[in-house]
Amino acid sequence: MRIRKSFLYIISVAGLVAVLYFVLGAGRDLEAAHMAGVQQVSSAAALKHDVLSAFPNPLAIFILQLALILSASQLFGYLFKKIGQPAVMGEIVAGILLGPSLMGALMPGFSAFVFPASSMGNLQMLSQVGLILFMFVIGMELDVEVLKKQAGSAILISHFSIVIPFALGVSLAYFLYERYAPAGITFYAFALFCGIAMSITAFPVLARIIKERGISSTKLGTIALTSAAVGDVTAWCALAVIIAIARAGSLNSSLYTIVWAVIYVSVMLFVIRPLLRKLAVNSSRDKLIKRSRLAIIFLILLGSSYMCEVIGIHALFGAFLAGVIMPHEWNFRKLLIDKIEDVALVLLLPLFFVFTGLRTHIGMINNPALWGACLAIIGVAVAGKFGGSALAAKLSGESTKDSLCIGALMNTRGLVELVVLNIGYDMHILTPEIFTMMVMMALVTTFMSNPLMNIIERVYR
Amino acid sequence: MRIRKSFLYIISVAGLVAVLYFVLGAGRDLEAAHMAGVQQVSSAAALKHDVLSAFPNPLAIFILQLALILSASQLFGYLFKKIGQPAVMGEIVAGILLGPSLMGALMPGFSAFVFPASSMGNLQMLSQVGLILFMFVIGMELDVEVLKKQAGSAILISHFSIVIPFALGVSLAYFLYERYAPAGITFYAFALFCGIAMSITAFPVLARIIKERGISSTKLGTIALTSAAVGDVTAWCALAVIIAIARAGSLNSSLYTIVWAVIYVSVMLFVIRPLLRKLAVNSSRDKLIKRSRLAIIFLILLGSSYMCEVIGIHALFGAFLAGVIMPHEWNFRKLLIDKIEDVALVLLLPLFFVFTGLRTHIGMINNPALWGACLAIIGVAVAGKFGGSALAAKLSGESTKDSLCIGALMNTRGLVELVVLNIGYDMHILTPEIFTMMVMMALVTTFMSNPLMNIIERVYR
Repeated sequence: MRIRKSFLYIISVAGLVAVLYFVLGAGRDLEAAHMAGVQQVSSAAALKHDVLSAFPNPLAIFILQLALILSASQLFGYLFKKIGQPAVMGEIVAGILLGPSLMGALMPGFSAFVFPASSMGNLQMLSQVGLILFMFVIGMELDVEVLKKQAGSAILISHFSIVIPFALGVSLAYFLYERYAPAGITFYAFALFCGIAMSITAFPVLARIIKERGISSTKLGTIALTSAAVGDVTAWCALAVIIAIARAGSLNSSLYTIVWAVIYVSVMLFVIRPLLRKLAVNSSRDKLIKRSRLAIIFLILLGSSYMCEVIGIHALFGAFLAGVIMPHEWNFRKLLIDKIEDVALVLLLPLFFVFTGLRTHIGMINNPALWGACLAIIGVAVAGKFGGSALAAKLSGESTKDSLCIGALMNTRGLVELVVLNIGYDMHILTPEIFTMMVMMALVTTFMSNPLMNIIERVYR
Repeated sequence: MRIRKSFLYIISVAGLVAVLYFVLGAGRDLEAAHMAGVQQVSSAAALKHDVLSAFPNPLAIFILQLALILSASQLFGYLFKKIGQPAVMGEIVAGILLGPSLMGALMPGFSAFVFPASSMGNLQMLSQVGLILFMFVIGMELDVEVLKKQAGSAILISHFSIVIPFALGVSLAYFLYERYAPAGITFYAFALFCGIAMSITAFPVLARIIKERGISSTKLGTIALTSAAVGDVTAWCALAVIIAIARAGSLNSSLYTIVWAVIYVSVMLFVIRPLLRKLAVNSSRDKLIKRSRLAIIFLILLGSSYMCEVIGIHALFGAFLAGVIMPHEWNFRKLLIDKIEDVALVLLLPLFFVFTGLRTHIGMINNPALWGACLAIIGVAVAGKFGGSALAAKLSGESTKDSLCIGALMNTRGLVELVVLNIGYDMHILTPEIFTMMVMMALVTTFMSNPLMNIIERVYR
């Protein structure tokens, strides 16, 4: 049998070789005629050129970008963990360093090779997909039941910690508008956007800091987390309204958008949500999310994002709300988060940081007036958010130490701020200068919260 | 306390309203000056136009595409399951129907709105990402240990079932070359590509059919699966060589590429693989893949894909090999497949089918000569693959019934064929006509395997 098989094998290979020999030989003759055919001029040469110039082709460049971004974000995430900062800070810094602020300045040739202008569209689209998945996860991690129970002082703290920086931000806009606002943007849009940019708290970064410090189950940790969650919802709703106003051009003409937005939110909460819950009760029994169910969930996510974009508030708000209405059944959310989080967060979110980094040009802030404006933005942001939150906590009866800690935590702006800033940039509300200053503000305020906590704890031990 | 809080709340809101009133009022005056400033001409009008024309913006279109593709693929997957076909066939058909063959012909306006030419770049890039993840999963699902044990008759069958259709395909190319090959492509490249296109067996579709028929653990099922797996590896290696030849232009100048490819494969197998195994031994104890490990795995995947693209064989081969060298420890692979498969397969793979569908224009095959060529391709493909596999099985001592069943199973081309065809299209080896014919061949051969199995089983019961 073995001999017979070997024999068959040899026969078949010999047959193939013979066929190849004869056919390829015969084809050669055709080739001469074909090549000298209609387009004999230089189509072969043109094709050869085409194949050559196709490398580096878009796919290869894209793979290279992914690999570079992934290594840099992991390396910096690791390094930042070593110095007591959350890993996500490192990933953000890695993104900024890959942009014109460092890599573009030191190695302009390499930078132009890896991030050619033609690849920006792809990077932006994929980072948007990452953000949509990310906002969806953020929405899912928001536990509405806990919010309802803890609402008491958390609502006061979180709204206070939005109102004060918002008012300060709007006032600051008065001084920035003339010199730094893009031409043709109304004061309304610019001022409201400055206000919201000052008021953001990064729920995910905050949650990670609290977890890493081991204060999740303390009163301080719970209040800070709940306030941040309430703040998240409030800020996103305010942002949706501001985007509607900015797009429509004035308060009055945005009413149409706002009415539609209210209808949309109602449908999501009172129609889609109960339906999903039924689905979830079955799913948590299965312990597995079937593919068709996963597809339905993706469809809700995409549909919600699309509706928000069509209505005139941002797609990311739709993704966030789709996350919020996902059923609370532990297994269901957990399975879903498991499925989406790792791929989305490890692979796609760093793309967004790099995309932000490519727009951030720290070298642009190069004279005393600009540095002054930058420092003013940082100062107002810290005063508003840190001061506002601490004041609110103190007024609602917390100890001085806890109040200061809450202020330090709520001052964390993290990557949610970057999301908001990119929306402002895309809508031409922010110039590249203001964008860069605000990115630096986001970095500084996020960076300072861990050291600030350490100082407060040492002083009030 | 409650009264005090309410009081604070009212004070803060009133304060915010006052600030907004005064600052926004004051800002109005600035606005007049700012708007009438340097670029007073019509920058405001230009911006307004810009904002308006930005809808439908690329993100909204992209979300709409995703939603449409996801619904269509799920619907058709469901319908095809009902008629006894694997769901993936339905997804492929859905992709083709969304292209110019049906939707573009019936609703050209809607089609142009949802799939504008400007969005093709994004679709292609994302579908490539999906394919890279898919090939990675395929590689991981290939169990090398089982291959080694079962190798005996499986190797003969699988190589026979490649050699015969390959020889037939090359011979057919002799008749197609003059009329249907693109200008400027050598006969070598065209003929070898036709050969490989005839020789593909779709391992994933085959595996699903075998699972659905409940013959996974029978001798027939095992032989067919193993032959398909061996065939997969052989076909991809052959394809890599053919791509190298086509890119380099001739056999001799492709030697350089082939030498590099051998070095690359050796490094992957004998350096990276043992290192990964060490990592896996630790991981399977944890039962969880940590993020940094996931990042390392993604880096290997991306690095391998990039190296293959640089060497001159296709990035997908790199993704496949990266999957093959992933350690066999059950938990490790299973966890990894779990993480990647659902998002990649539910969300991204249908994108690839639609992208293929947008290139497939069945209406283009509109005269007897073209229909004749199409039928010839289908006939040769079936004769080569079905006939070749059945013959090899019979010669290596299987029963007539089992031999015919193996032939019917190996004839399944599924989506792996589509991957190969798209590579040929991208490399300008296939014209749109030949591409469409080959896509129809892939559909017909995949579609026929289940009914054929039923007939064979009824005849030889």
